Amino acid sequence: MSGRAALAPSHDAAWYPFSHRVGVRFADTDAMGVVHHARYLPYLEETRIALLGAAGHPYTVVRANGVDIAVIEVAMRYLLPARFGDTVDIGARLGSTTRTTFQIAYLLRRADEVLATAVTVHACLDNASGRPLRLPAWLADLAAA
Amino acid sequence: MSGRAALAPSHDAAWYPFSHRVGVRFADTDAMGVVHHARYLPYLEETRIALLGAAGHPYTVVRANGVDIAVIEVAMRYLLPARFGDTVDIGARLGSTTRTTFQIAYLLRRADEVLATAVTVHACLDNASGRPLRLPAWLADLAAA
Amino acid sequence: MSGRAALAPSHDAAWYPFSHRVGVRFADTDAMGVVHHARYLPYLEETRIALLGAAGHPYTVVRANGVDIAVIEVAMRYLLPARFGDTVDIGARLGSTTRTTFQIAYLLRRADEVLATAVTVHACLDNASGRPLRLPAWLADLAAA
Amino acid sequence: MSGRAALAPSHDAAWYPFSHRVGVRFADTDAMGVVHHARYLPYLEETRIALLGAAGHPYTVVRANGVDIAVIEVAMRYLLPARFGDTVDIGARLGSTTRTTFQIAYLLRRADEVLATAVTVHACLDNASGRPLRLPAWLADLAAA
Repeated sequence: MSGRAALAPSHDAAWYPFSHRVGVRFADTDAMGVVHHARYLPYLEETRIALLGAAGHPYTVVRANGVDIAVIEVAMRYLLPARFGDTVDIGARLGSTTRTTFQIAYLLRRADEVLATAVTVHACLDNASGRPLRLPAWLADLAAA
Repeated sequence: MSGRAALAPSHDAAWYPFSHRVGVRFADTDAMGVVHHARYLPYLEETRIALLGAAGHPYTVVRANGVDIAVIEVAMRYLLPARFGDTVDIGARLGSTTRTTFQIAYLLRRADEVLATAVTVHACLDNASGRPLRLPAWLADLAAA
Repeated sequence: MSGRAALAPSHDAAWYPFSHRVGVRFADTDAMGVVHHARYLPYLEETRIALLGAAGHPYTVVRANGVDIAVIEVAMRYLLPARFGDTVDIGARLGSTTRTTFQIAYLLRRADEVLATAVTVHACLDNASGRPLRLPAWLADLAAA
Repeated sequence: MSGRAALAPSHDAAWYPFSHRVGVRFADTDAMGVVHHARYLPYLEETRIALLGAAGHPYTVVRANGVDIAVIEVAMRYLLPARFGDTVDIGARLGSTTRTTFQIAYLLRRADEVLATAVTVHACLDNASGRPLRLPAWLADLAAA
């Protein structure tokens, strides 16, 4: 699928300026005994929200200011399964901004093993009208840093 | 993210030999008032399992025969949000097989509106050992049809 | 837990005036190989929304008219596990109304086996203010029928 | 619903010997703008697994020793909605054991506000056969403490 997702997520944890840790819940597993592939998307969401918070822009405040950050694309590659009880470290790096979109690359690791990589592409929406918005300056700056 | 996901999902419903209908549950929505982006992945899963069943290979039987079909990649593009109560028609088409992987392209529509497209890439695993398996002949044939 | 949930869900399918069928998704299972206990709650939700629709009150319309139907209590008893691929028939019966609450009893069956029973207790809320509302007449009538 | 759930969950946080903190994910919300009622069940699950771990019995080890702890009943009462970004403190207390079952009472709070209470009832199963097991001595002792 040719597309917008342009960031190439490195397998080197040092490439990611931000890191967030998630514990695998039993409810995240499926009958294959591993984490269901859909359950990783909330891990990525929690990671980028933690990233925004660490950058001084809690998503609750962003939303209270009228901005929703929508997911317009997800590309995820699963290399090794995570299991119940695992601790997953998720590196995140912003980049590839346009006037109205930005991207985040992710590396999911269990200790030194790479479990998965992902890229999400986002647009900002006016949360009253649902209309696309130009990226707020703070967000464009953050993604360009 | 350059990668395996090679199928280009058409926006033309006629391109998809199989179609499956899903009703949006209230539990699928989030505080933006629309279906949460992670919730579409189980829709895709239900669609490909319906496709396998329609082709004479119920996934319960596939698994009883020792084969798990793992998701090794997901690429999804969200164009318009689905909402609670919507009926979503999901077209699916297999293709791009290798000796050990196959791909499925999806088109998600609400009546004539395209909501999203997706590609999933799959590998077959021996469900006792977790080891990759060559695609079963029936599946290679199905994806080549 | 002594409480409001007053309906006693019968194990006799004939006691339930409404029935709804749900197919178990692979995503509903967990590492025990059965449906995760939390995943049944959306089945109950889908069932009561189907019941409202069948009674001429689609929940999308109820909400558009300013009313949210909140869950204020859930009591569920799990007798036999459901598995991926199972078809679950869910009987539902309204009752035990007060001026501001109503209850629904459920029976979950796989063919003739009882899988679970449940009771949910609901209140109506003004969806602008979040304030409790007196039950709409149509709903009080439906629950008293 | 008359039943097994016999513990009466106190609204006094001091009654609970164990406490666990959960952050509300955006993915936990629904179109009412609050946490969906089904999403609390994984919070309770995470809490009791943290309790077992703190007592020296990580659930991964319990399962590796052949024992699944199944949920046979859930009773939950929702008093105030939690929202995205909230921190929820969950008190837990074991009790009401029989030879084959035990119960846990929960209090969910956001700072000093009580959001919900719950009771879960559990049985131990042999995870090869699915057969009920007598409670392991350590678990009976823990619940009686």
